[in-house]
Amino acid sequence: MTGEEAIIQGALAPLSSGFPGALGLKDDAAVMAVPAGQDLVVTMDAIAQGVHFFADDAPADIGWKALAVNVSDLIAKGATPHAYLMSLAFPSAPDPEWLARFAEGLGQAQSEFGLHLIGGDTSRRPGPVSITITALGLVPEGSMVKRGGARPGDHIFVSSTLGNAALGLKLRANAPETKMWPLEAHERTALIRRYLRPTPQLGLVPVLRAHARAAMDISDGLIKDLGRMTELSGVGAEIYANRLPLSATVAKVLAAHPGEIVAVVAGGDDYEVLAAVAGDQVAAFEDAAATAFVAVTQIGHIRAGTGVLVIGAGGQPMQLTQSGYDHF
Amino acid sequence: MTGEEAIIQGALAPLSSGFPGALGLKDDAAVMAVPAGQDLVVTMDAIAQGVHFFADDAPADIGWKALAVNVSDLIAKGATPHAYLMSLAFPSAPDPEWLARFAEGLGQAQSEFGLHLIGGDTSRRPGPVSITITALGLVPEGSMVKRGGARPGDHIFVSSTLGNAALGLKLRANAPETKMWPLEAHERTALIRRYLRPTPQLGLVPVLRAHARAAMDISDGLIKDLGRMTELSGVGAEIYANRLPLSATVAKVLAAHPGEIVAVVAGGDDYEVLAAVAGDQVAAFEDAAATAFVAVTQIGHIRAGTGVLVIGAGGQPMQLTQSGYDHF
Repeated sequence: MTGEEAIIQGALAPLSSGFPGALGLKDDAAVMAVPAGQDLVVTMDAIAQGVHFFADDAPADIGWKALAVNVSDLIAKGATPHAYLMSLAFPSAPDPEWLARFAEGLGQAQSEFGLHLIGGDTSRRPGPVSITITALGLVPEGSMVKRGGARPGDHIFVSSTLGNAALGLKLRANAPETKMWPLEAHERTALIRRYLRPTPQLGLVPVLRAHARAAMDISDGLIKDLGRMTELSGVGAEIYANRLPLSATVAKVLAAHPGEIVAVVAGGDDYEVLAAVAGDQVAAFEDAAATAFVAVTQIGHIRAGTGVLVIGAGGQPMQLTQSGYDHF
Repeated sequence: MTGEEAIIQGALAPLSSGFPGALGLKDDAAVMAVPAGQDLVVTMDAIAQGVHFFADDAPADIGWKALAVNVSDLIAKGATPHAYLMSLAFPSAPDPEWLARFAEGLGQAQSEFGLHLIGGDTSRRPGPVSITITALGLVPEGSMVKRGGARPGDHIFVSSTLGNAALGLKLRANAPETKMWPLEAHERTALIRRYLRPTPQLGLVPVLRAHARAAMDISDGLIKDLGRMTELSGVGAEIYANRLPLSATVAKVLAAHPGEIVAVVAGGDDYEVLAAVAGDQVAAFEDAAATAFVAVTQIGHIRAGTGVLVIGAGGQPMQLTQSGYDHF
C-alpha cells in the first residue's frame, strides 16, 4: 500500500462506512442515488492553515471546521446535508496521530450534521495544509432557498447571536486589546470555541424552505453578506444596531469597549443564517424556528433602493470602518 | 465588488452560463436535478503547480488539464460528464490575462467533454497555485463501472497508446536523456502536448457501461493502476510487453533506448482507460469501441492469485525498477 493509500484507508475510509456508494474510498468515484422528487444542492469551500485556522489548532477542531463551513452553505439553502468529498494537501506526510484526531473531528461533524465522506484525494505539495470540501445536500424539487429572492418590505432575520467568533478569533490570536476585556477565563474559552467549532443551525433547514424568501450564511460578516444578498436581489436594507442579537459575553465586551461592535456587524466566521422573510410569513417563521429550538431575531427590513444602512441606537446611520473579510 | 468576486464574475461566471442551476456563480450553492433512473457519479482531484504542472505552462493548458483529469475518472466509470465545481488557490491575486487564458482552457475542455462549471471558491494562500475540481457525472441507475469487478479469465484492455505523456513530461522537463532520442521537433512537440493536454476517451462511456466488468483510468502508471484493480478485485494479472500499444513516436524512442519501456508500463499522466472484459463480451467490446472511433488493445489477462506480472518479448517475466507515481 502506498503512502497516499495508507492515509486514505487508515484514517479516512472509516468515515465512509455508512455510505455504500462511497465504495470504501477504493474506487475512482462514488455513486449515489438522488431520490425522485429531490434536487441535488452542491457547494465547495476550502480552508487553509494560516488563513482559516492556526497551525497549532487542535486537529479535531480543524476537521470539524472544514466540514461545518460547507454544511453551513447547505443549511442556508434549506438543503439536508447528505455526503461530501474532501481533497487534502500536506507539505509533508502528515503525522498519523494528527491525522487520526483530524478524522475524529470530521467524524463528530458528520454525526452532528448527518452526512458521510464519499470521496476525494490526498496529495503532497508545498505551502500550508489545506482542506477542500465539496458538500452535497438534498431538497425537494424546486425548493432550494436562493440568495437573490429578497423583496422590499421583507423582514431580515439572523439566527443565534453575532460576533462571538470574531471576538473568539481575537482571543485565539492574543490580540493586545483582548487583555482589557472584562471576561472570566471560561467566557474567553467559550468565545474561542465559537471560532474553532462553528455550529451551523441544522434545525433551520425545513424552516427556511417553508418560510424564507431568501437566505445565505454569514461567513464574511453581516454587512458584507447582507450586501451580497441585497445586491443580487436588487434591493437595499436597513438594520438596527440595537436589535443585533448578542451573547451575554459579547454584550459584556461591548459595554466596556463599544468599538467592538465592528465584530458584530462585520466580523466573519459566525456561520449563522441570514434570511429575508415576507411579512405574512414572519409569525410562521418565528414559530417554526422556536419549534426547532433555534433562536432567530428580526434585525431590520429590506427596502427598495441599494446599499445596507446600519441605524445606531440614536436613530442615526452609523459609519463603519470595516466591512468584513475579502480574500484578495 | 471585492477581489474574489471580480475574479469569479469576470473570468469564471461565463463558464457557468449554460447551466441555469449554477445561478451565475452568485449563490452559496448550485442546484441540479438528477433525472429519474440516473445515478450521480462524483469524483474529486486536485492539481498543483510544481507537482502536476509547471509554473510556466500555458494557462490554457493548466485549465484544460485540471478538468480533464477529473473527467477521466468519470469516463472510466461509464459516467457522462455533467457539471463541476472548482476551488482555486493563489499565493497572490492572479494576473487577469493569466486568468482569462486559464478560463479559456477550461472552456475548451468543457466543450470537448460536455460539462459546465456550477460552483466553487477562490482564495489566497501561500504555496503553489492549485486547482481542485469536483466533477459530477450521470449513469443509468446501477450501471456505474467499478474498479473491483475483474474476474479470472477476463481480458485486459487499454485505450489508445501508452507512455506518450511520460515521455512528454521528460521532454517538458528537459531531462538530459531526451537529447539522445531520435525524434524530430514536431514529434517532441506532439509528446509534450500529450502530457499537457490529456484527452480522456469520452467515446468509451457507453462502451464501458455495456461491456466492461471493471474499469479505471491510468493516471499513476499501468502497473500501479492495474495493481489497484487486481487487488480490489482479489485477482492477479499478466500482461505482455510486446502487446502494449505504442504510438509511432514512442516506438521510435524505445527502438533506440529500450529502457524507456518503463515510461510505457509505469509512466503516469496518460489518462487512458484500463478495462477488464469478460471473454464473451470481447468481440462486442471491440466492435463498440471501433464504432466510437476509439482504439482499444488487449494487453493480457486477469488470473487467479495476486500481483501483476509483465511478460517480456522472450516469454520471461520482466523486472521493473519503477512502479508509477505515489503522492507520498
